[in-house]
Amino acid sequence: MTARDQREFFTVKTVSEALTGFRPERRTPVESVGLDDALGRVPAEPVSAPHALPGFARATVDGFAVRAADTYGASEGLPSYLDLAGEARMGRPPESEVRRGTAVAIATGAPLPPGADAVLKIEHTQAATAELLEVLRPVTPGEGMVRADEDAAPGDELVRPGRPLRAQDLGMLAAAGIVELAVHARPRVTIASTGDELVPGTEPQLETGQVRDSSAPALAALVREAGGEPDFAGIVPDDRETLTARLREALEGSKPTRLKGSDPLSRGDLDLSSAGCDVLVVSAGSSVGSRDETAAAIASLGEPGIWCHGLAFRPGKPTLLAECGGVPVIGLPGNPRSALVVFRLIGMPIVRLVGGCTDPPPEPSVRARLARDLPSAAGRLDVVQVRLDGAEAEPIFGSSSLLSILTAADGYVVVPEAATGLAAGSDVEVILYR
Amino acid sequence: MTARDQREFFTVKTVSEALTGFRPERRTPVESVGLDDALGRVPAEPVSAPHALPGFARATVDGFAVRAADTYGASEGLPSYLDLAGEARMGRPPESEVRRGTAVAIATGAPLPPGADAVLKIEHTQAATAELLEVLRPVTPGEGMVRADEDAAPGDELVRPGRPLRAQDLGMLAAAGIVELAVHARPRVTIASTGDELVPGTEPQLETGQVRDSSAPALAALVREAGGEPDFAGIVPDDRETLTARLREALEGSKPTRLKGSDPLSRGDLDLSSAGCDVLVVSAGSSVGSRDETAAAIASLGEPGIWCHGLAFRPGKPTLLAECGGVPVIGLPGNPRSALVVFRLIGMPIVRLVGGCTDPPPEPSVRARLARDLPSAAGRLDVVQVRLDGAEAEPIFGSSSLLSILTAADGYVVVPEAATGLAAGSDVEVILYR
Repeated sequence: MTARDQREFFTVKTVSEALTGFRPERRTPVESVGLDDALGRVPAEPVSAPHALPGFARATVDGFAVRAADTYGASEGLPSYLDLAGEARMGRPPESEVRRGTAVAIATGAPLPPGADAVLKIEHTQAATAELLEVLRPVTPGEGMVRADEDAAPGDELVRPGRPLRAQDLGMLAAAGIVELAVHARPRVTIASTGDELVPGTEPQLETGQVRDSSAPALAALVREAGGEPDFAGIVPDDRETLTARLREALEGSKPTRLKGSDPLSRGDLDLSSAGCDVLVVSAGSSVGSRDETAAAIASLGEPGIWCHGLAFRPGKPTLLAECGGVPVIGLPGNPRSALVVFRLIGMPIVRLVGGCTDPPPEPSVRARLARDLPSAAGRLDVVQVRLDGAEAEPIFGSSSLLSILTAADGYVVVPEAATGLAAGSDVEVILYR
Repeated sequence: MTARDQREFFTVKTVSEALTGFRPERRTPVESVGLDDALGRVPAEPVSAPHALPGFARATVDGFAVRAADTYGASEGLPSYLDLAGEARMGRPPESEVRRGTAVAIATGAPLPPGADAVLKIEHTQAATAELLEVLRPVTPGEGMVRADEDAAPGDELVRPGRPLRAQDLGMLAAAGIVELAVHARPRVTIASTGDELVPGTEPQLETGQVRDSSAPALAALVREAGGEPDFAGIVPDDRETLTARLREALEGSKPTRLKGSDPLSRGDLDLSSAGCDVLVVSAGSSVGSRDETAAAIASLGEPGIWCHGLAFRPGKPTLLAECGGVPVIGLPGNPRSALVVFRLIGMPIVRLVGGCTDPPPEPSVRARLARDLPSAAGRLDVVQVRLDGAEAEPIFGSSSLLSILTAADGYVVVPEAATGLAAGSDVEVILYR
């Protein structure tokens, strides 16, 4: 490491240290949502079944409600006979009763009449007369039915706090008559871009040297994937004073001055007047000077301040993690590919944590054979984009400024900190982009 | 198969036949969306780079723009010397030129001055005087920089039609100055529930025999996951005439009469007046009679009509697939667990296809060791929910009416049609719910 590197990265950590050690305490407030808007939302507290489900013993086959004992010994050669005593109607309390020696016709889903303890499949019966049923096979108690509390007993936990709600969870809540529940508010994540070379995405004509802000809209998409609500603080000049003022405004929620073309897509409908943010993301300029300015600006925002400046991570060394006045602040590298790789690995877990999500949804991945050697340094974690060709993972190499590496990739391979690289032919896990 | 089975399931297909053979031609219309709303949307046509990206040769390191040939042979022992000829400023057209024997200071991301063909890292240099640079290592042409068209050449395809847009795709489009693009409209999927036992999810108190409609809200969530927009036709009585009329209204888009409690959550803000749907989903009653009524109602809705009635699928045998007047119609089993399993496996691909998605996002999965035998019948596909315990997959057995099996599950195992079951200890793929 050169003297300059040592100056810039004064508190370098590993990715593992960052993932386990940087655990901001901030959590979004709890709000109530209706089931219709609850997919993917994070329950803030356990929800218990208010009563048994389905709430009554129910047939699971079409046939006849019986006392199982009445069918013991029945066979095609030597049938038992039961008196037909009515029909259990769907959706209504039973009108008949099953007494010894009788059977009540029942359809799948209908409530079992009192006295019955099993349902005989229609295929295992035959009508002897209009009032007499021939039983061709025996049933055991509980067969052909579910108990009144078989789906849930009163007090059973229906959803777990911290795990985003899935389709079936919404079904279960609906079955229990729960129409709204307490969830964590979506974390408001403000994204600020710095760099004198940046212009908004709406800029039709570029000067040599200018590039459009591609990181902000891509980061906003990752914020949404992590359950957050992105907000743009715009493109901030590489000037410590302006930068500090704009970041402070984002943190504290005073309305920022609207600069011409200050947000990446110049949308008129963005709300820049919200009351502060839950996570602040600063996509730094790409040069050392710009990164220094950003670090100094973040350091001045509040206590406890910078947690790490520099990660043993490729691409993503110039990553900064801080907590300023209770708000986690993530300083990302200025190169778009690095920024997105770091935010996916480090930033999305922070957004999820702040949003109360302790049990994140699984990521799609696939095993593949690595097509080429991936050299790395021990102690450093590398993320390498790959293209899948059948069962082969072909690494895509190139500058961390190139977004095309990410758009061409099907997923990525992680070279862990303990490894000094991965050899061609290795069996690797490819985490898939979606 | 009994005579009753044969009557009910007159055109049974395998799941594989359904997935490959039932390919409705309907596609949603094309609409324009801004990048901010484009995550996960499906591009309707290719989008090409309107110009080269980044558009100018750019430094990827902090250092000095040089002619590589001027550095050949340089070493710490025998440095080369270059005259400093200014600085390339970030975000502005270069003012200096690199002539033979000169170097221009440059920061990562700044445009290369004319004449330069490489950037020397600052670490490999030393200031001899204020105007003279000592070069300690050689560079080759192209080192420390990206070419003007290295991220994209004019006309390069930036996004592929049919594949949902990912975060990095939005970044790339923003970099190219594309602020909106043509995508397929979200498929409008109308969900109708039938069954005399069903009451809306808002019903606080149930009679014995009544159950709340849990399938509709859970199916709506799966529709959203597949990129569609769900709409509720409400709970429809098990009566062929009423059912036919309500389904026809859903297909054709006339405003259905609003019955009391006709939608599963009785939300007042649902739009029931849309102009028809793109996919119609009917969650049938659970009894044979109710399923017969539903099949007859669907058969009468239009040509070409029913494609299959019955799938060699557990749980999901009473599945019906039809195309009526250009709209795919999916008849689901009445049991909530079966309905969700079938919709995930058969319905979501149909919703995606209608929405133009030909390259669906990958599903998360994990390899595990099966803890118990899973018997199955050859020719039938089984979906079995499992709980993961470390590397072990523990099957959860029980009635297909029980939603708790789905809420307790981490994912599911598929027993393919060719297999007669899977043995305990087998290495299986568990597809994870999220």
